[in-house]
Amino acid sequence: MKLLLLNPNTTESMTSLMAGAAQRVASPRTKIVATTAKIGFPYISSRVEAEIIASDILETIAEHHTQVDAVIISAFGDPGLIGARQLFDIPVIGVAEAAMLTACALGQRFSIVTFSDSLADWFRDGVLRAGLENRFTSIRLPSERFQSIETVQEELSESLVQLVEEAAYTDRADVAILAGGPLAGLATKISGRLPIPVVDPVPAAVVQAEGLVRLNPGIARAGGFARPPAKDTLGLPDSLSRRIEHTD
Amino acid sequence: MKLLLLNPNTTESMTSLMAGAAQRVASPRTKIVATTAKIGFPYISSRVEAEIIASDILETIAEHHTQVDAVIISAFGDPGLIGARQLFDIPVIGVAEAAMLTACALGQRFSIVTFSDSLADWFRDGVLRAGLENRFTSIRLPSERFQSIETVQEELSESLVQLVEEAAYTDRADVAILAGGPLAGLATKISGRLPIPVVDPVPAAVVQAEGLVRLNPGIARAGGFARPPAKDTLGLPDSLSRRIEHTD
Amino acid sequence: MKLLLLNPNTTESMTSLMAGAAQRVASPRTKIVATTAKIGFPYISSRVEAEIIASDILETIAEHHTQVDAVIISAFGDPGLIGARQLFDIPVIGVAEAAMLTACALGQRFSIVTFSDSLADWFRDGVLRAGLENRFTSIRLPSERFQSIETVQEELSESLVQLVEEAAYTDRADVAILAGGPLAGLATKISGRLPIPVVDPVPAAVVQAEGLVRLNPGIARAGGFARPPAKDTLGLPDSLSRRIEHTD
Amino acid sequence: MKLLLLNPNTTESMTSLMAGAAQRVASPRTKIVATTAKIGFPYISSRVEAEIIASDILETIAEHHTQVDAVIISAFGDPGLIGARQLFDIPVIGVAEAAMLTACALGQRFSIVTFSDSLADWFRDGVLRAGLENRFTSIRLPSERFQSIETVQEELSESLVQLVEEAAYTDRADVAILAGGPLAGLATKISGRLPIPVVDPVPAAVVQAEGLVRLNPGIARAGGFARPPAKDTLGLPDSLSRRIEHTD
Amino acid sequence: MKLLLLNPNTTESMTSLMAGAAQRVASPRTKIVATTAKIGFPYISSRVEAEIIASDILETIAEHHTQVDAVIISAFGDPGLIGARQLFDIPVIGVAEAAMLTACALGQRFSIVTFSDSLADWFRDGVLRAGLENRFTSIRLPSERFQSIETVQEELSESLVQLVEEAAYTDRADVAILAGGPLAGLATKISGRLPIPVVDPVPAAVVQAEGLVRLNPGIARAGGFARPPAKDTLGLPDSLSRRIEHTD
Amino acid sequence: MKLLLLNPNTTESMTSLMAGAAQRVASPRTKIVATTAKIGFPYISSRVEAEIIASDILETIAEHHTQVDAVIISAFGDPGLIGARQLFDIPVIGVAEAAMLTACALGQRFSIVTFSDSLADWFRDGVLRAGLENRFTSIRLPSERFQSIETVQEELSESLVQLVEEAAYTDRADVAILAGGPLAGLATKISGRLPIPVVDPVPAAVVQAEGLVRLNPGIARAGGFARPPAKDTLGLPDSLSRRIEHTD
Repeated sequence: MKLLLLNPNTTESMTSLMAGAAQRVASPRTKIVATTAKIGFPYISSRVEAEIIASDILETIAEHHTQVDAVIISAFGDPGLIGARQLFDIPVIGVAEAAMLTACALGQRFSIVTFSDSLADWFRDGVLRAGLENRFTSIRLPSERFQSIETVQEELSESLVQLVEEAAYTDRADVAILAGGPLAGLATKISGRLPIPVVDPVPAAVVQAEGLVRLNPGIARAGGFARPPAKDTLGLPDSLSRRIEHTD
Repeated sequence: MKLLLLNPNTTESMTSLMAGAAQRVASPRTKIVATTAKIGFPYISSRVEAEIIASDILETIAEHHTQVDAVIISAFGDPGLIGARQLFDIPVIGVAEAAMLTACALGQRFSIVTFSDSLADWFRDGVLRAGLENRFTSIRLPSERFQSIETVQEELSESLVQLVEEAAYTDRADVAILAGGPLAGLATKISGRLPIPVVDPVPAAVVQAEGLVRLNPGIARAGGFARPPAKDTLGLPDSLSRRIEHTD
Repeated sequence: MKLLLLNPNTTESMTSLMAGAAQRVASPRTKIVATTAKIGFPYISSRVEAEIIASDILETIAEHHTQVDAVIISAFGDPGLIGARQLFDIPVIGVAEAAMLTACALGQRFSIVTFSDSLADWFRDGVLRAGLENRFTSIRLPSERFQSIETVQEELSESLVQLVEEAAYTDRADVAILAGGPLAGLATKISGRLPIPVVDPVPAAVVQAEGLVRLNPGIARAGGFARPPAKDTLGLPDSLSRRIEHTD
Repeated sequence: MKLLLLNPNTTESMTSLMAGAAQRVASPRTKIVATTAKIGFPYISSRVEAEIIASDILETIAEHHTQVDAVIISAFGDPGLIGARQLFDIPVIGVAEAAMLTACALGQRFSIVTFSDSLADWFRDGVLRAGLENRFTSIRLPSERFQSIETVQEELSESLVQLVEEAAYTDRADVAILAGGPLAGLATKISGRLPIPVVDPVPAAVVQAEGLVRLNPGIARAGGFARPPAKDTLGLPDSLSRRIEHTD
Repeated sequence: MKLLLLNPNTTESMTSLMAGAAQRVASPRTKIVATTAKIGFPYISSRVEAEIIASDILETIAEHHTQVDAVIISAFGDPGLIGARQLFDIPVIGVAEAAMLTACALGQRFSIVTFSDSLADWFRDGVLRAGLENRFTSIRLPSERFQSIETVQEELSESLVQLVEEAAYTDRADVAILAGGPLAGLATKISGRLPIPVVDPVPAAVVQAEGLVRLNPGIARAGGFARPPAKDTLGLPDSLSRRIEHTD
Repeated sequence: MKLLLLNPNTTESMTSLMAGAAQRVASPRTKIVATTAKIGFPYISSRVEAEIIASDILETIAEHHTQVDAVIISAFGDPGLIGARQLFDIPVIGVAEAAMLTACALGQRFSIVTFSDSLADWFRDGVLRAGLENRFTSIRLPSERFQSIETVQEELSESLVQLVEEAAYTDRADVAILAGGPLAGLATKISGRLPIPVVDPVPAAVVQAEGLVRLNPGIARAGGFARPPAKDTLGLPDSLSRRIEHTD
């Protein structure tokens, strides 16, 4: 099985981090194909940035979808997720949605623990889009700043442990999600010290992707996720316009 | 006052239709500056198309925002609305949101009447994003097909009258929204025959835009709609990257 | 255009304050006709008082409705709003509803900032009636007392600035509403110091009223806001009973 | 124990009907004190009528509250209920709320069966105010008209049986409420023929009133139902203004 | 009238406490038949314990249901309530549900005050099952520990008074429920000192049970609470299997 | 990896059907350990039956939990799920919850298609417990009866295809769940003919169980799913009481 792990950020070291976390949990015969965005932002951290980059995500999937079994969009706000599910016939997984659905199998209420204030509103949108407000208790954020997105995981690890404890004891969360690409892989390092189960979004997306491929539930030919009928396009990237014009 | 009426579709005749409906309701001294998308689709009618075009919408606003007092994004799914509100300091109005908020001032429950099945899921997303599920009763769609997006308003007018009646008598809606750019201006022509008030999204957006400009409620410097801090970009259009990098 | 600005409180100086705030935002050719309640309370501040005064509000509208284009009920709990919309054919605006719908066009979540503890439950009812719980975060109240309803705006202005800051930074509101008739006009004075946009209910109601008049969406002849069929009355004020008995 | 059964309609025969239904279920030593409105409408059937009559309801309670143990407001929309609970120290019961809470003890989802289209929106408001949308499935209305409010119970009894069956088999209601004063007492006559339990609002209110008096849960001196502090009034009926001014 | 007061805990002194509280509020001619669980736990305090004991509760009701008029399941999480309502034709009351419905007749929002942290999640489940999230504000718990379940009421009474005050002043609850069998009877002792009405679940269940018996609303023969058709069983207790196999 | 597939029904042929469906989707090295209930019902089909059997489910898990890596409770209403998650340290999966969470990764709204009217209310409870009302559109049931629970899958297959079509075209579901143990394995046989993806609960539970084992998110030592402290028991089965008394 081949999974496209699409990092919509332009930072290559983040792609490596994610790919490592993905590979550790993947089945032996699953191959992770990781890509890094060519345009956009070092690290997407707000709704406007997610909107700007969505088209490029769809283009990247259009280039790869015939060669992989499923796609993982690896930014916690799940940019482009709904559109990609409409446009392509293979499973498309968002790391935020996968993490939240996994959390729902582990407890009644989950908290999201992340590292930067600017992410909170974007992440909350994902909870609403998933209709999981009733399962969600809080977003917990550290008060201190960090030096670099590449070392934030080490810099803030003590602080993040404490935030999970606050999620458990103050917000009465049953589960915590460690959200944000730069935290990929942290969960396994600290879960032994935590009072509640903790979900790492990238690995959660990998097992969900593998599961959906094996379940093989069929393709939407009706409803809100059916591929739209062929339509003319103007000035769009080739691979994307061919998919939309049904000339692929 | 100058309002940017941004048509994110590539069909110029639709821009004229919208601009006409806008001008008829605008204050005498309000100037409508209408634009037509240079890339994308003749008529956006699904979520994936809305995601693809969002970045281009933001770029267009970036080019105009210093010369207008407010922006109207004129496609019923309000593509790019949240991002535009973050990125720019002037009011940004979505025609769907404006129509729904207007409907909420006219009755308890509103229906959306539109002309094509493929729009329904996209429009329903807008209801959810606005948190107005409790005020929403139904989407009503005609069963017959139409020849052309440019004449749909004439072709289906009898059918749309009947759908509003069904919204009123069967779904118990207090108000109906005639949704979809190609229907701009229809409401005034048929409202005399309708049992409930009917909202035309483009004019509703115009009066909302004028109202917000006059209210002058201040700019978000905190919260989910504050402009994100300056950030590097890679490969984005000039006007947009300057706005994001705070070099404009 | 003529707008009836109906102050359901008996305090005339409050009417002047509201009328001033209304006039400042109104279009040049809009005339504000302001009335003060003849019976009731100096300042309505609870649900029971709102219920007591509702009938008198409807009577006042019955006396004026043929001479104005729209009505604004100027008490934040919107007493009599639903009934007035049923009974009369012109737009009827509640300042609370108008403020909340305006806030929804400026951000995702709004807070209500007001000056007296006793108003909180009444105002929260309005949020529920509008079905806007998902858009609402908090009511913020000052801890100190004030001397007089006529000077509360000056007495508490520093405190109110701070409450808006708490709404923004603690409750993560994107917008704040300065609620309560005695605060009319305060928003413009302090908005420059505030981190988020702030809505002044009376002006918000004025632009909404003007907008609805210009949109001219038609009259409800079916649904929950249609005028009830003629019915006998016993002992009601003349103007009101004529409207109900369809003898006006 | 003495219960004030307040009929806010002006039709005396309806008061008798309600009082009979109340007395049949009351404890032997409970005395029903029934009153008929002196002003207002033969039969309140819409929201605007409920708003008009609320003040008169509060005045009537102000006249009786020291001589009874609890009050039942006997119109299905519960006009004046919230205000009365604030203003008086004895339990105040609304027949709609009592019926809905009783239904919640008999099944998961209830339907409301009533006799006139114009009641539907008013009754639905009560469901929303009670926050019981999740327990509510439908309002069922007969398609035929009736001659008189005094004989509607006999005229429509077959039709109402059928509506309860539709509520059970089509809407999957577990319980039905027979709503509207003119139907008082009908439930016992037809319940043997019905597939699901059926609630008669007036008797439900009587047992709830007796229960609250016996439970004696204490008086609200804080929160949203505490009696407001003394306040000046202008032009209100004596008994009501004395209660508000704390001079009673 | 005979009411089965079923204590699903194995502690006899708790049964006496509950029976005393029940008898004090019951009508003179109502007889309370109290039972204590033969198997299970001294005091059920979590969801898993409630699930384990549910079958035994149903068996106990199967043994008594022909000799009583209604059943009260006296553990705040209402174990077995839904199943019992399906299986038996007499009213079955849960003390949690009865307390919450009573609270809804006394105010808009209620808090639950209890004595042990482990109860909180179990009690919150009950709020969700009842669909009363909108009426619920908080669960308040003491920070100190107690010696024994038999004396917890005395040990913590000062602390519980304070928690009700916090519910009223901080959480803005209009009503408080003193939850948990070991607190039965406490409400009357302290209600004079409390700022808001307070509900004692066992007495609330008694008046609700008496009320339902007197209302006699009919038996569910359709819907989600109809007795299931006869079905074979294997290895179940006699009285229970007879009821299920329709051989009783 | 070893998964306990716990069939809480007493019908052995159903266990074989479920085990076959499980094995087909399981990873090569996963071993399915299937058990059939020794007491209870041939096929659980209502809430009361689910409550009766919950204790036995917990006992069965108590006997096996040290020898398996995860548990699947294979009845669509997920009896005993919450309790089992509290009591045991390995992942416990409910087939209904797993199916619904899988459906949420495939579309916005799901329908449940099943074969017997009596299941509908029980299954709807599961939707509410999961807080997924916003993602749920309908339960679709066949109108015809079937001969035997062991052949229902063949008897009704045409009818079930049609129900999925109605879910897609009428209820606008994006995904359908084929619910009920006797339908295990049907999805793969008919998915090629269906307009929307279809989820088979047992396989969905298997991939979820494998995924959770591989993710290894840690054990709840706080919150609503932590193992309760040691507690005395009376008369419970050995393995269960040892687990509760912490003597295992």
